[in-house]
Amino acid sequence: MDLKIYLKDQAALVDAALDRYLPGADTLPEKLHQAMRYSVMAGGKRIRPILVLAACRAVGGREELALPAACALEMIHTYSLIHDDLPAMDDDDFRRGRPTNHKVYGEATAILAGDALLTEAFELLCDRALNREVPAETLLRVSNIIARCAGSTGMVGGQVVDMESEGKDIDFPTVEYIHTRKTGALMLASVQCGALLGGADEQAFAALTRYGSAAGLAFQVADDILNLVSDSQTLGKTAGSDAVRGKATYPALIGLEASRDRARELKDLALDAIAPLGGPAEPLRAIARFIIERSS
Amino acid sequence: MDLKIYLKDQAALVDAALDRYLPGADTLPEKLHQAMRYSVMAGGKRIRPILVLAACRAVGGREELALPAACALEMIHTYSLIHDDLPAMDDDDFRRGRPTNHKVYGEATAILAGDALLTEAFELLCDRALNREVPAETLLRVSNIIARCAGSTGMVGGQVVDMESEGKDIDFPTVEYIHTRKTGALMLASVQCGALLGGADEQAFAALTRYGSAAGLAFQVADDILNLVSDSQTLGKTAGSDAVRGKATYPALIGLEASRDRARELKDLALDAIAPLGGPAEPLRAIARFIIERSS
Repeated sequence: MDLKIYLKDQAALVDAALDRYLPGADTLPEKLHQAMRYSVMAGGKRIRPILVLAACRAVGGREELALPAACALEMIHTYSLIHDDLPAMDDDDFRRGRPTNHKVYGEATAILAGDALLTEAFELLCDRALNREVPAETLLRVSNIIARCAGSTGMVGGQVVDMESEGKDIDFPTVEYIHTRKTGALMLASVQCGALLGGADEQAFAALTRYGSAAGLAFQVADDILNLVSDSQTLGKTAGSDAVRGKATYPALIGLEASRDRARELKDLALDAIAPLGGPAEPLRAIARFIIERSS
Repeated sequence: MDLKIYLKDQAALVDAALDRYLPGADTLPEKLHQAMRYSVMAGGKRIRPILVLAACRAVGGREELALPAACALEMIHTYSLIHDDLPAMDDDDFRRGRPTNHKVYGEATAILAGDALLTEAFELLCDRALNREVPAETLLRVSNIIARCAGSTGMVGGQVVDMESEGKDIDFPTVEYIHTRKTGALMLASVQCGALLGGADEQAFAALTRYGSAAGLAFQVADDILNLVSDSQTLGKTAGSDAVRGKATYPALIGLEASRDRARELKDLALDAIAPLGGPAEPLRAIARFIIERSS
């Protein structure tokens, strides 16, 4: 398969759905909805929603049934970026090559736009009309998994420990704690939810869980490497910023080459896990390889 | 019935459940969970969860089935207070007589504690084991209503318009827009969710919806009046702060006496709506009267 074309097509599908699901820019209060759209529609790789769709397909499910959940995960990811960029947090001026949300709309609106996106995600997930064909029990399980992975022992927890660790000497288990939660948790949730919405049996769900854990961690290791070796233009944000801030990263702790080894090892783990799923899992395989290749 | 004792007993029930549902203060990351607990366990009147339980009882339902949703609503209310108090928003130093969350834990942790509480609310709502006896379709509808009322066209929307209106000459429809959303929406959601979890039929649900709309707005009108006429000690926060900030309030727009008339009118609307529900709705009636009496 041509991964480039696949990713582009799937991202277009997700973009169109996000545009449909988000309240219009002329919905009151207009400034809030414009701020929400500004960050969601800023592009980005749409890796999480694409993982949802690919996991759904890998177990023989219909991708369109997973589209609302896919968009919900992208909204949650976007809210976390808006809040991470705030002056009280990472204080970033640029994201995806554009001024950050609070730079354009002000800090208060940026906080509230993030809050609203997080809330909108669950409105979408629990919207019965939108998810007519999905069993109610499945929708509840999907929503619960997403909330757990995004919450205080998942993504938000990872962000807290990341902040606390800045400029400190931290050990390897702490870096893994941060990475499995800050980025890994939501990517695992994406794969698990796609699997459930596709009607995965227990064995396939377990296989995809192993894939999601490994691929999610690999993605963050690759991101660490990219932040170190890439230039700001390619990155769309300030390159080398992790090192300047004394951020807890893989390369800082175990070096660049060992980090690349670890990323490759995680990719292999991910591929092994889904070997039994055969042909329909091909997109998931291509994505796992792509994650690593970005940084090698 | 003795409302004082009723409110105290119900608040104790809610407090105990919140303590059970929230991750412990020793759960990693500890600082985050302590910050979440600091604001949730700071007391407060627990009006929203008590409304959930009272609406459930009013239609003959078992209150314990509504307890997770009741706590979820209190978590959402608390997250909104934490974010409202931030320096970029209302910049308040005290809340419920104690230093605000960001004054104790810092701005970044306060933002994340709010995010985590909002997420935790939906984890709770969609937790199948915790809500075993509630039909999945009901849980989905309850979660969807709460998300809608808390989101960009509900509570968060009201907060945005409130902020935009500070220090400006605004008209009466704008004040009602703010009040029905900023406070009213979540109180309406409380009553509606209690009704659904209690197994309300369509007629009872419609009656409780009218009650919830009127009582929710009455509560905010009464709050406006209290902010103007009370002293800071009684209030637990800075009295007269609305006027100093040029906030959009009922008394500022239509005067103190007309505001009191409007509050009484809304209380009567609320009482009329639930007249057909008879004896089991007595707590809801007492709450509607209590809301008004605080400010008269």
